[in-house]
Amino acid sequence: MPRLRVHCFALSLDGYGAGPRQDRDQPLGVGGGALHEWALATRTFRKMFGSEGGTTGVDDDYAARGFENIGAWILGRNMFGPVRGPWPDDTWRGWWGDEPPYHTAVFVLTHYAREAIRMAGGTTFHFVTDGIHAALERAAEAAGGRDVRLGGGVATLRQYLRAGLIDEMHLAMAPVLLGSGEALLAGIDVPGLGYRCTQHVATRNATHFILARRG
Amino acid sequence: MPRLRVHCFALSLDGYGAGPRQDRDQPLGVGGGALHEWALATRTFRKMFGSEGGTTGVDDDYAARGFENIGAWILGRNMFGPVRGPWPDDTWRGWWGDEPPYHTAVFVLTHYAREAIRMAGGTTFHFVTDGIHAALERAAEAAGGRDVRLGGGVATLRQYLRAGLIDEMHLAMAPVLLGSGEALLAGIDVPGLGYRCTQHVATRNATHFILARRG
Repeated sequence: MPRLRVHCFALSLDGYGAGPRQDRDQPLGVGGGALHEWALATRTFRKMFGSEGGTTGVDDDYAARGFENIGAWILGRNMFGPVRGPWPDDTWRGWWGDEPPYHTAVFVLTHYAREAIRMAGGTTFHFVTDGIHAALERAAEAAGGRDVRLGGGVATLRQYLRAGLIDEMHLAMAPVLLGSGEALLAGIDVPGLGYRCTQHVATRNATHFILARRG
Repeated sequence: MPRLRVHCFALSLDGYGAGPRQDRDQPLGVGGGALHEWALATRTFRKMFGSEGGTTGVDDDYAARGFENIGAWILGRNMFGPVRGPWPDDTWRGWWGDEPPYHTAVFVLTHYAREAIRMAGGTTFHFVTDGIHAALERAAEAAGGRDVRLGGGVATLRQYLRAGLIDEMHLAMAPVLLGSGEALLAGIDVPGLGYRCTQHVATRNATHFILARRG
């Protein structure tokens, strides 16, 4: 069985993984963009979006690690796009243009069936309507011996966390306050599920924490 | 008017300032002691409790800053002791023995009146029954031109924070998960109250954040 890994999931100091009032113009919610400044500044992310330069060192090492040995992704439906409810048509193909930065099979959790979409660069979006366990099984099979990365968002992470299915979670706490939004860990007994903090290190832009299962 | 300052207030990675089920044997709640390991390891805290040695550097600098220019303290009643409801008698005199580490007037918020207690080393505990604003006024007067330190616990900090009365708050996030307990910032729109994160730095034992009012 491959490992299910979360990387570069950004949190505010007050524990929110996204700001309030997410929509097409503000996919990360009001103020949510500030959570990701550390990542967007790294060489790894800049290269992914076709730019040069960027920070190297701790932030970039964490960013790069998130792409090592990943054979498939799982995303929540709201991370795939702003459309809610039944798909009105097939025009929405993700936030990322014709060539998304995944380059693997990506399993999107949704209550509404849809045909798979083959994108440029090796990304294929599959829509999974039978729940988180089914999505993990399909992703594990598609990963071909490599690991599965769980991209988010908050609600999806909370589901997998509560089910005890995440092996390792890298959180990046940005030195910003959001005040409201989607809280990642609130109300979940994370140590009771067997996780502990195994690493923490801060840079100017973020504090990085790794949560992993004991033993 | 003196400044109202919070220092060395420890939080878990999941946002709790104390663990669940606080009582006389576990005044910080189950697991809550781990939040304070960084502080107890510092030279400043060790000296306060009559020991030698201890860490120097960032952790210790933050610990020491918390005692600079402080002329009075405010504590919530549960931080003063485990007694709930009316005082059964006058035997409980705080967690700290005959010579508490405050050495100033300390204003304890409670719903139940009690005579002030003069302790060794310059600490006098005063019991304030008319609310957080009254306690702050009395502390400000007692501070004699110096600042007032708000010690905690969580419920007391939340009251002062919501009222916009805290000028500066130093939080120390320990790399531990508690899973449940008293959440410090949950449900409070801290940036909406005018605070932003003005400093953050991590050591092996904690990540330090300063929240301060704009302007």
